[in-house]
Amino acid sequence: MSHTAEEVARAVNGRLHGDAGRSLRGIRSLDDAGPEDLSFLGTPHYGPQARTSRAGVVLCALDCDLGERDRIEVQHPHLALATAIRLFHPAVTAAPGAHPSAVVGADCQVAQDACLGAQVVLGDRCKLGRRVLLHAGVVLGADVEVGDDSVLHPSVVVYPGCKLGRRVVVHAGSVIGSDGFGYATVDGTHHKIPHVGTVVVEDDVEIGAGVTIDRGTLGSTVICAGAKIDNLVMVAHNVVVGPGSLLVAQSGVAGSTRLGRGVVLAGQSGAAGHLVLGDGSQVAAKSAVLQDLPEGSKVAGIPAIPMATWRRAQAAFARLPELLRRLRRMERDGTDDTEEA
Amino acid sequence: MSHTAEEVARAVNGRLHGDAGRSLRGIRSLDDAGPEDLSFLGTPHYGPQARTSRAGVVLCALDCDLGERDRIEVQHPHLALATAIRLFHPAVTAAPGAHPSAVVGADCQVAQDACLGAQVVLGDRCKLGRRVLLHAGVVLGADVEVGDDSVLHPSVVVYPGCKLGRRVVVHAGSVIGSDGFGYATVDGTHHKIPHVGTVVVEDDVEIGAGVTIDRGTLGSTVICAGAKIDNLVMVAHNVVVGPGSLLVAQSGVAGSTRLGRGVVLAGQSGAAGHLVLGDGSQVAAKSAVLQDLPEGSKVAGIPAIPMATWRRAQAAFARLPELLRRLRRMERDGTDDTEEA
Amino acid sequence: MSHTAEEVARAVNGRLHGDAGRSLRGIRSLDDAGPEDLSFLGTPHYGPQARTSRAGVVLCALDCDLGERDRIEVQHPHLALATAIRLFHPAVTAAPGAHPSAVVGADCQVAQDACLGAQVVLGDRCKLGRRVLLHAGVVLGADVEVGDDSVLHPSVVVYPGCKLGRRVVVHAGSVIGSDGFGYATVDGTHHKIPHVGTVVVEDDVEIGAGVTIDRGTLGSTVICAGAKIDNLVMVAHNVVVGPGSLLVAQSGVAGSTRLGRGVVLAGQSGAAGHLVLGDGSQVAAKSAVLQDLPEGSKVAGIPAIPMATWRRAQAAFARLPELLRRLRRMERDGTDDTEEA
Repeated sequence: MSHTAEEVARAVNGRLHGDAGRSLRGIRSLDDAGPEDLSFLGTPHYGPQARTSRAGVVLCALDCDLGERDRIEVQHPHLALATAIRLFHPAVTAAPGAHPSAVVGADCQVAQDACLGAQVVLGDRCKLGRRVLLHAGVVLGADVEVGDDSVLHPSVVVYPGCKLGRRVVVHAGSVIGSDGFGYATVDGTHHKIPHVGTVVVEDDVEIGAGVTIDRGTLGSTVICAGAKIDNLVMVAHNVVVGPGSLLVAQSGVAGSTRLGRGVVLAGQSGAAGHLVLGDGSQVAAKSAVLQDLPEGSKVAGIPAIPMATWRRAQAAFARLPELLRRLRRMERDGTDDTEEA
Repeated sequence: MSHTAEEVARAVNGRLHGDAGRSLRGIRSLDDAGPEDLSFLGTPHYGPQARTSRAGVVLCALDCDLGERDRIEVQHPHLALATAIRLFHPAVTAAPGAHPSAVVGADCQVAQDACLGAQVVLGDRCKLGRRVLLHAGVVLGADVEVGDDSVLHPSVVVYPGCKLGRRVVVHAGSVIGSDGFGYATVDGTHHKIPHVGTVVVEDDVEIGAGVTIDRGTLGSTVICAGAKIDNLVMVAHNVVVGPGSLLVAQSGVAGSTRLGRGVVLAGQSGAAGHLVLGDGSQVAAKSAVLQDLPEGSKVAGIPAIPMATWRRAQAAFARLPELLRRLRRMERDGTDDTEEA
Repeated sequence: MSHTAEEVARAVNGRLHGDAGRSLRGIRSLDDAGPEDLSFLGTPHYGPQARTSRAGVVLCALDCDLGERDRIEVQHPHLALATAIRLFHPAVTAAPGAHPSAVVGADCQVAQDACLGAQVVLGDRCKLGRRVLLHAGVVLGADVEVGDDSVLHPSVVVYPGCKLGRRVVVHAGSVIGSDGFGYATVDGTHHKIPHVGTVVVEDDVEIGAGVTIDRGTLGSTVICAGAKIDNLVMVAHNVVVGPGSLLVAQSGVAGSTRLGRGVVLAGQSGAAGHLVLGDGSQVAAKSAVLQDLPEGSKVAGIPAIPMATWRRAQAAFARLPELLRRLRRMERDGTDDTEEA
């Protein structure tokens, strides 16, 4: 499947500079692209590669500085990239129906155009919406609901009673609805607190691979609409992840903490339990939030403090030994003075 | 199913204040509960919610201060919560027997009242005790043993030869018995060291979702009785996790380290290999233990130091830039003095 | 199966001290071994145990100091250990063929001596090399290739189009080829960027349990020959992990970062995106690399700085409160002086 540069420019609503009739057969990274490929410059960081790339046409921002090379300038390069990729790689749709090896419990409601892969297991009373795609080995407990156009990749497990919205994507091996880590400890013995709540995943959420989201003790753990969760993230019982929030790989949120709208937890960061992280707050990689964050906070460190403060303190950190030496010298000089007195 | 306040109080061995005959139909969080619900106050943190909650009755500690509202006071609120939840949500028992799609190896000994879900796979010579419940997609290698009343959630994998005790719970996607990360590196090439040890999980252990526990190189990795492991925790080869220890989410223990009784690793913390962490030692979130810990230690930081020291140092950390400025001023003033002299 | 001390010494190419005809029946840790066992001393740390162990013979380094006890001295003790373990525990080979419950897609090419366990699922057009072993519940998407002698443990998932080389080992529950965490965010809405790249895993790579490796957006994520990846590690889209690199448990590499040859990321460490980590660079546990690393770097901290600097600074860190006190005293004394003047 090939497209002319002009067709691509029209699809991404961009401004074409160069040969409108040039035929493009694929989309490739700057290093890999050849004269018949579209390529992509997302950040100025890769400007040098974009200038020397053999790509036929480069998709780039309006203000990029690529000299005379053929290019398509757009306002939102990453959004245009998403469109262009789908142009060259149309989404594959699965054939509807259930594989003979799939096991479907009693009283399930499965849309006729839903697709159940090999070895899929559905508990009783599950409801699957239109065009739902369950890849091989997915296991849904009893009373699970999955909304229209959602995709669960292989070996995803959803515990009983959890609800997934529409256009939800869950990647392989993720677990939704496991019991929270809650015990009543008496005299050193940990007695399990049964977890009878659930998990609610709203529309347009994407969940990466190897993620674990625990069910509420009572009530629900909620992943609000449009939130995106990267691989190996841990969301504990009764957490609320606000709409459009981003949890980057290997981050974790402890029990009952509530994230507002558009919160960002960078890679390997964490938030303690029973906190409120205000709308738009951002937590730097590796950081640990131990107290509530006001709206729009940017924090870093363990415990997390305002990012600007943390940066200055961290820059000074490497100079600690020098600082100690200087202090010692002053103390000695002071003492010398005293001795001289 | 409904219970009177008096019935609930009797079940949790608590002191009822208020209407003994009040009918309760469920148990809900303070925010969600209505007049026909029991609710729960676990920490003073949520005292304000408890005072304004619409809950019919609140389960709380003996010394809680909830004014005149109907309540049941108990010595151990979390333990009472566990009991009360089971009162309103009795545990569901699975029908015994093996699903037709389950695959059972040769010479297995499976108790008649054990339950094997769909797509379960048992290797040869496995032994399953009374009332063992293997959910859909569980895979046990050859020679695996699982004790009475243990529950393995969907897609759990247990490698050959590993032994699980009684009343063990393992959540979905966890892996028990994978090879440890051990190589003999000669001239930059890493030669695999075969792992022929095993994993022993003792009675009453609960293991969260997405956990990995490596088998011993020689000998066993051991999770002792009553230990509780949260999601996405890593336990390396030949580790011993002591009785009643708690490994919170995303924490990790490197090879051959031995945790004593009642050790707590908080979230995202870690311990290096070949260490001994004494009974009752506690490691703060995000911390890294790099040396042995005496009994009862409380440590924090990277590397972990006594928690009190760490707290004071960490509080001073944010003031490092100010400290540098003050030092610089003194040095300059000192110089000035000298110049004036 | 038993071997004489002499046979063992010959197999590991070592120098035997003691009774050549002593019969050894197994290989066990120093603590567990008896007079009919071979045991192993890998680091001087366990020297005392080696001296008091009841083991019949101890495998150890040339320069170990074990007095008169029977031992086999070798140049590379860990390599000899690997050999000795295989002597007492020969690798078990699986019977070739596909279990009746396995589901094989259209137009697959499966070597006759490959082995497909129960509930395995292969998409269309997969290619499996000689003696490939897919354990129970493995799911391969369409167009996946697995080279000769590779082993995929239970419930491993490989997404469509990914290529695994020869002698690759992947442990249970790992996911290869999930979509990267890439979105075009416009006005707070995150639009998914389709991921049409792939993952290439070269020869002799071992991947632990619960690992996630995302496919490239365009182009490939590459795990080069001989790299070893521990449990619960995250490798993001378009990353290159250099030959012989070691990623220890729970470490993570963000998108498009390139690791050179023999790079080591210690446990729970991470590298930010779009970086280059030079050949042989080493990142300490819990550290976060935020900038390119020259060849042979050894770094630690958040952000990572040269390890020697970090060590000194970290040692000073605990003394910060004292440092502040000393500074305060000097300032006060200085003020006093002024007042006296």
